[in-house]
Amino acid sequence: MITEEIKVIGFDADDTLWVNEPYYKEAETAFIRLVSAYGVERDAAAVLYETEMANLELYGYGIKAFMLSLVECAIRLTKGTVTSDTIAKILGIGKEMLQRPIELLEDVKPVLEKLSPRYRLIVATKGDLLDQERKMTRSGITAYFHHIEVMSDKKKKNYMQLLHHLDIIPREFLMIGNSMKSDILPPLKLGAYAIHVPYHTTWAHEEVDEEPGAERFHRVEKLKDILKLIPPVSVR
Amino acid sequence: MITEEIKVIGFDADDTLWVNEPYYKEAETAFIRLVSAYGVERDAAAVLYETEMANLELYGYGIKAFMLSLVECAIRLTKGTVTSDTIAKILGIGKEMLQRPIELLEDVKPVLEKLSPRYRLIVATKGDLLDQERKMTRSGITAYFHHIEVMSDKKKKNYMQLLHHLDIIPREFLMIGNSMKSDILPPLKLGAYAIHVPYHTTWAHEEVDEEPGAERFHRVEKLKDILKLIPPVSVR
Repeated sequence: MITEEIKVIGFDADDTLWVNEPYYKEAETAFIRLVSAYGVERDAAAVLYETEMANLELYGYGIKAFMLSLVECAIRLTKGTVTSDTIAKILGIGKEMLQRPIELLEDVKPVLEKLSPRYRLIVATKGDLLDQERKMTRSGITAYFHHIEVMSDKKKKNYMQLLHHLDIIPREFLMIGNSMKSDILPPLKLGAYAIHVPYHTTWAHEEVDEEPGAERFHRVEKLKDILKLIPPVSVR
Repeated sequence: MITEEIKVIGFDADDTLWVNEPYYKEAETAFIRLVSAYGVERDAAAVLYETEMANLELYGYGIKAFMLSLVECAIRLTKGTVTSDTIAKILGIGKEMLQRPIELLEDVKPVLEKLSPRYRLIVATKGDLLDQERKMTRSGITAYFHHIEVMSDKKKKNYMQLLHHLDIIPREFLMIGNSMKSDILPPLKLGAYAIHVPYHTTWAHEEVDEEPGAERFHRVEKLKDILKLIPPVSVR
């Protein structure tokens, strides 16, 4: 059981509150279909991942970074024979991603409704600042959250900044998310609480083998199960 | 003179603390040189601006958005005849921008040194989250600031969120920057203080004709002159 010290609960957004990774997979499939017409020999998905990883430090996370990597990867995969018409289509794939409606995951609203009177809830997410703010606005769940924190990365250092910013100590923070690498392990290492809510599709970059032993770690199958772990406290 | 109510001073970053717009102008020049080889008839700079404005709502601000607009604009300007080699070079222009060293503007360090013991200083900037955080780290002036706020836009609404986040009322906030449109007019309209420090190069999108009449508005020629306007107060 999680103790009563918790003051702030951080929710990851993509694939924790709403659908995200399946949209990337769909975009990747559309991209591979486009470049396959050029008789690509190499594994397009693997080269795309390589390109994304090579650009990660420079571009960071989010759809715009993904779009730039798609264009670069198309040039590489087709050995420069890609036409501007195909590149325009690739840009179109990204623009569509940026305009997709928000699909909330199961139980999100009832869970937030239960927790928001009792805790300060925030969204802690990576990705494009504008895109995440836009998704938040469209999601219809803004009112449950004190604010949204868009982070350039989700490493230990970034969570330290977040806690400093929130003016709380690690034991007052609980993080909930689908990525062991980004949402669970770094907060646990700092001494915070974490609940893992796995999602069926995970980006290779977010996968880790490490399994935490900390008492402050929990895993649930469905988001609504977190309510059993979080103690009811008096209104803050 | 600015009153003693001020608790937080927000500094714009690009072209207030460090050089930015000239780098965009250089990139634009390099881009126009590349597409000119295709015998472009239209005013390339004007079409680029049009493309950027058309994408602004979707992409937001920053270098990645600029790169995506450059690629799209190249296809449009060359009527689809642009080669993938040229597109690769355009991506290269953007990658170089992302890696430029930081050039601090005159007086920045001595001014921050004077103000930081007396006020809570923050950086309030638009642009790519990762890029602005990286510039901040490289700038060597991080220690003077409580934190950096990367904003998806700098309209009245965004400043309202910022003040909410900072837990202060408008009269406790002073904003300093080079853009009348983004740094000066919105905070003034909210009831905050603002000091305009013009920069020699301004992006067309940031230009306005409006001249504020508020007593809470000041303009200085050099950044160091703001010290004459801000009252010395006891250590916070």
